[in-house]
Amino acid sequence: MDNSSYCTESLNSALSGTKSGSSYDDMVEITGATLDFSVTEDVQSLDRDEDGVEGVPRLLELLDEPVPGLGTYEDFNTIDWVREKTKDRDRHREGAAAYIVNYLLYVSWALLFSFLAVTLVRAFAPYACGSGIPEIKTILSGFIIRGYLGKWTLVVKTVTLVLAVSSGLSLGKEGPLVHVACCCGNILCHLFTKYRKNEAKRREVLSAAAAVGVSVAFGAPIGGVLFSLEEVSYYFPLKTLWRSFFAALVAAFTLRSINPFGDSRLVLFYVEFHTPWHLLELIPFVLLGVFGGIWGAMFIRANIAWCRRRKTTWLGRYPVLEVLVVTAVTGLVAFPNPYTRGSTSELISELFNDCGLLDSSQLCNYDNVNVTRVSNRLPDRPAGRGVYTAMWQLALALVFKMLITVVTFGMKVPSGLFIPSMAVGAIAGRLLGIGMEQLALYHHDWLVFQGWCSPGADCITPGLYAMVGAASCLGGVTRMTVSLVVIMFELTGGLEYIVPLMAAAMTSKWVADALGKEGIYEAHIRLNGYPFLEPKEEFSHKTLAMDVMRPRHGDPPLSVLTQDGMSVQEAEELVASTAYSGFPVVVSRESQRLVGFVLRRDLVISIDSARQRQEGVVSSSRIFFTEHPPPQPPGSPPPLKLRSILDLGPLTLTDHTAMDIVVDIFRKLGLRQCLVTHNGRLLGIITKKDILKHLASMANRDPDSILFN
Amino acid sequence: MDNSSYCTESLNSALSGTKSGSSYDDMVEITGATLDFSVTEDVQSLDRDEDGVEGVPRLLELLDEPVPGLGTYEDFNTIDWVREKTKDRDRHREGAAAYIVNYLLYVSWALLFSFLAVTLVRAFAPYACGSGIPEIKTILSGFIIRGYLGKWTLVVKTVTLVLAVSSGLSLGKEGPLVHVACCCGNILCHLFTKYRKNEAKRREVLSAAAAVGVSVAFGAPIGGVLFSLEEVSYYFPLKTLWRSFFAALVAAFTLRSINPFGDSRLVLFYVEFHTPWHLLELIPFVLLGVFGGIWGAMFIRANIAWCRRRKTTWLGRYPVLEVLVVTAVTGLVAFPNPYTRGSTSELISELFNDCGLLDSSQLCNYDNVNVTRVSNRLPDRPAGRGVYTAMWQLALALVFKMLITVVTFGMKVPSGLFIPSMAVGAIAGRLLGIGMEQLALYHHDWLVFQGWCSPGADCITPGLYAMVGAASCLGGVTRMTVSLVVIMFELTGGLEYIVPLMAAAMTSKWVADALGKEGIYEAHIRLNGYPFLEPKEEFSHKTLAMDVMRPRHGDPPLSVLTQDGMSVQEAEELVASTAYSGFPVVVSRESQRLVGFVLRRDLVISIDSARQRQEGVVSSSRIFFTEHPPPQPPGSPPPLKLRSILDLGPLTLTDHTAMDIVVDIFRKLGLRQCLVTHNGRLLGIITKKDILKHLASMANRDPDSILFN
Repeated sequence: MDNSSYCTESLNSALSGTKSGSSYDDMVEITGATLDFSVTEDVQSLDRDEDGVEGVPRLLELLDEPVPGLGTYEDFNTIDWVREKTKDRDRHREGAAAYIVNYLLYVSWALLFSFLAVTLVRAFAPYACGSGIPEIKTILSGFIIRGYLGKWTLVVKTVTLVLAVSSGLSLGKEGPLVHVACCCGNILCHLFTKYRKNEAKRREVLSAAAAVGVSVAFGAPIGGVLFSLEEVSYYFPLKTLWRSFFAALVAAFTLRSINPFGDSRLVLFYVEFHTPWHLLELIPFVLLGVFGGIWGAMFIRANIAWCRRRKTTWLGRYPVLEVLVVTAVTGLVAFPNPYTRGSTSELISELFNDCGLLDSSQLCNYDNVNVTRVSNRLPDRPAGRGVYTAMWQLALALVFKMLITVVTFGMKVPSGLFIPSMAVGAIAGRLLGIGMEQLALYHHDWLVFQGWCSPGADCITPGLYAMVGAASCLGGVTRMTVSLVVIMFELTGGLEYIVPLMAAAMTSKWVADALGKEGIYEAHIRLNGYPFLEPKEEFSHKTLAMDVMRPRHGDPPLSVLTQDGMSVQEAEELVASTAYSGFPVVVSRESQRLVGFVLRRDLVISIDSARQRQEGVVSSSRIFFTEHPPPQPPGSPPPLKLRSILDLGPLTLTDHTAMDIVVDIFRKLGLRQCLVTHNGRLLGIITKKDILKHLASMANRDPDSILFN
Repeated sequence: MDNSSYCTESLNSALSGTKSGSSYDDMVEITGATLDFSVTEDVQSLDRDEDGVEGVPRLLELLDEPVPGLGTYEDFNTIDWVREKTKDRDRHREGAAAYIVNYLLYVSWALLFSFLAVTLVRAFAPYACGSGIPEIKTILSGFIIRGYLGKWTLVVKTVTLVLAVSSGLSLGKEGPLVHVACCCGNILCHLFTKYRKNEAKRREVLSAAAAVGVSVAFGAPIGGVLFSLEEVSYYFPLKTLWRSFFAALVAAFTLRSINPFGDSRLVLFYVEFHTPWHLLELIPFVLLGVFGGIWGAMFIRANIAWCRRRKTTWLGRYPVLEVLVVTAVTGLVAFPNPYTRGSTSELISELFNDCGLLDSSQLCNYDNVNVTRVSNRLPDRPAGRGVYTAMWQLALALVFKMLITVVTFGMKVPSGLFIPSMAVGAIAGRLLGIGMEQLALYHHDWLVFQGWCSPGADCITPGLYAMVGAASCLGGVTRMTVSLVVIMFELTGGLEYIVPLMAAAMTSKWVADALGKEGIYEAHIRLNGYPFLEPKEEFSHKTLAMDVMRPRHGDPPLSVLTQDGMSVQEAEELVASTAYSGFPVVVSRESQRLVGFVLRRDLVISIDSARQRQEGVVSSSRIFFTEHPPPQPPGSPPPLKLRSILDLGPLTLTDHTAMDIVVDIFRKLGLRQCLVTHNGRLLGIITKKDILKHLASMANRDPDSILFN
């Protein structure tokens, strides 16, 4: 080994950096003679055990921590490679007994944590379960769910999220963190009158809070803003964009001040490789996109079917038991496989990263013989035994994650979907990547590999395939595009890989959309019957406003108030006999010309307060919505002037307006109802619920599945 | 020098990579003994001359290219440092005569190029001048400018853009490339009926084209999509987002296939440093944001004042002369200063990058004595004579760029603003960065520097300050936020610097907004009087629809058609006596109840074609908009049935609707006009122009400055 290769070594370890696990960051001298790569084979099969029962009893491990510095090296010293390897081997020569004890401990801790999580949720804050994003989308679209963003939800969700993640269940923390951030935003709104009193203003704050949630969950501020824009928010004017941007900036700044990973980066999955990719590799990348799309669509179907079963059968009556069973199954199946035992984030991080020469993990067990380096980059090498072991373990992990996530997402514990879907994609991608790498290595004479995969070239980076796979699966499940790619950049720092990531995201969206129109959040919104007017779907039917408005043919006529002459009693009878949330006011019953709109709530309150405070207002008093009530005949009770509660600018449409325009107006203006006229005469009313029912019946779904708004 | 430092050397050259100009990419052995850093001082003052008359006669230089490989090294060889330096010195020992010849050549070429550019623009496509973004914004908001996106504009703008950039004028190519991309999009629209016939659909394509323009100009696909969303587009539904995303993906893919920079990257300004930044550095970063904001606002004012002078005085009558004078002044002032002589992109690239140990440029002329390295990173070093020379040259360049850009942007040649503003910011940032670096070096005992700027630490990266400065100035001029930060990432790969970039972008937007409400594009839109309804500005006045609608008090009554009984002659007289683009149709003049709306164009065409084709239609024929015209008395001419041209669903508002809601509805629904009713009776009409005039008068501007829509 000549001198020139030293630089490669240290370059490689420097480039693969903190992730490669080597603790020799500073200047060290590596003596070529002590480097014998063949010894790595002796320890390869034990490497993943190193972390023991990762993810669960980390607290216990802290107690066993050795004296700091013991067995490490001084500056400018030579390390002893053989001693290092032996230390590693000794540490993990555990017997079968210890393994079984660990196994049982692992499952027991998991059960304890998940039991605590589900019990706390059930006892104190039922809204704390799930990811929360479907409900937040619905709230942002104008619906009100009291308590969903309250302080109890905040506290319980924060605590149970930690428990749920620690229990080893196949779930992530990102969605729930968005919910937690929105709770914080909502609670902060109560401090300011401007936001407390105005539901629309409050929703602007919630949009920014959603951005902050992703910003801190991923360390991806711009991705957070775009996630809020593309996925969560309903109205997103530029002003909200800037405010979200500012909120995400403050979040990123705070995160940076805390410096969670100790390397002044915000993210967990930072990759250090900058290997270029070849244009032909777009074919496998697109294939990963197809895989992600198919898996995403299938996952949504299976998950929705399972959740529907939970809603309708006995399953829903035993949520604690369900969580315990799923936790037990997860623990029992996950523990034996080193790739499912530990934290999923760390698995993804390992899959994303490239193998350095000194990397001793099983996944990096390549044969280093015959390595003739021609550049700074490490050439593709033949896979060793460890890599093949890792591959089938990863394949098992893939199947397991794909199945268990279906039953996990939607249980009565806080559960996010980002990390599990990324894990599925990363495993699939890494497997394909290693396959491609070995194919290119052994068949570098094939036409497709000629020119870029000559022997000794570094032509395939399996970590990149894992990144692309993760983006594909996340895209297939959520149908994000721009925000997905930005989140992937910010997560990994892989700006060179923008084209592969974009291609995979686009393919996965297309494939998934072809197999099922809705993303996971929309599917859950529909499952739960929330009154959410999907802004993405295009309305393509040729119906008119008159087909949707009420009253229909044969219905009793529209309940209206007249602008003058109606008595208090008549108004009260109207209110008592209907459940409408508001009434149009017309000039007269004969002309039906529209004057304005009055909210039921305002009308009831006004009449009640007038009866109590205003001298002489009785049931026979007349109500006037006109500016100047005519003088009353002497002896009659004093009139009730209600012009102040009259909305003089209600939006009206004609009965011939095409429904696609009506839907568009409802979406863009966020209307709750709209009055329908014909030749200037009031004819009927269309509410948001009418539109949702119409959309459902047009799509051959049950219109009555939609909750009342 | 011990062995351990080799790695540092090669690491540094590897990390500062292709930009540092060293040609020793492969494994080379550097013998410590041949490294004498003191020799660098001898050549420092000549280094920038190396590129000669960069930017202009590069074509000529190709002919003088030496035999490839001559004077280079074999693989695994030791380079001769002294020989390298001497070669460098010999090559540039030019006399004063040669300098003057170069000088004159530089200015002459510049004049020739700019003359050709302005002449071509004037002769063939007057719309090809300027950046084009204000006009594209206006077009996307619903205005029609015929020929603005035509094939002649495309061809001429492409050619003259190359000429204008080559002429050394202080302008960039990014804005014009957006215009060129939109021309392509518009021309492609003509191939598909769906897009040719529908102006709204075509605007969706143009939004995607704008994204593509930035995507190829900067190699920043996601930045392009967000630029289109935040800055250019008017309506940007999620569907357009995805389509723009796809278009940008294809653009990035194509760019990657062409591989313009030969390193499989899409961008010019890639920075290789990953030095962490300290939280305290946010103070200078925010200061740069303040500078960018102030400069941006001042630039806009000065530029608009100059452009107004051009519009109103003799200046506007001599555009060719103006271009030639500005080119001559630019050339004469720019040539002597090495930092303004060459291409601005390369200047920015140099300013963004960090100085490696072997970097021989003037800007990197640091004293390397007493360098004791404690980590892989190069410590802060005292500035040498070259750095101080560079600093005052840069300061002069800064003043020059700040002044000359004001008169350049808006001349009758294609001119973008991104590169000049980034250059101003990059220079200011680099100067501040070097200042901070030297301050921290000489005063490392100050409280603020304690703990992170100990002697020998690499605590300040001047290149990062240049990046932040560039983002600030670009933000101050354009008022972008999210798209700005994403473009800066994609341009530089500096994902670690997201917080500094966000902080600078936010500060610069705030400061600039405080000094002047409008960005440069909005300011030019207003200068030119385009009917553009700003989606960002909030309408905060308490006026009602009745204050804005026409007819006003004292005006003649609204011109309406009745649904039955009007004769062809009456309709023709109505059309002839007014210039309105449409007429409301009412039940009868007495009731004024609204039936629908008819476009003037449709009415005229229908009557004309009926007169020509339909048997017996004469001036006294009656026009019916009703579904079933009543039977006509015998002997009377056959009726004209025009229900098919009647828009039965015109949007109506009541006269009491608050204007902020009216403005919101016009923006969100993209209306051209809206009818105003009172108690079901038609009262008046509000057009987009009425709203623009109302906004102008509310802001104390001349309402008549707005062009007719």
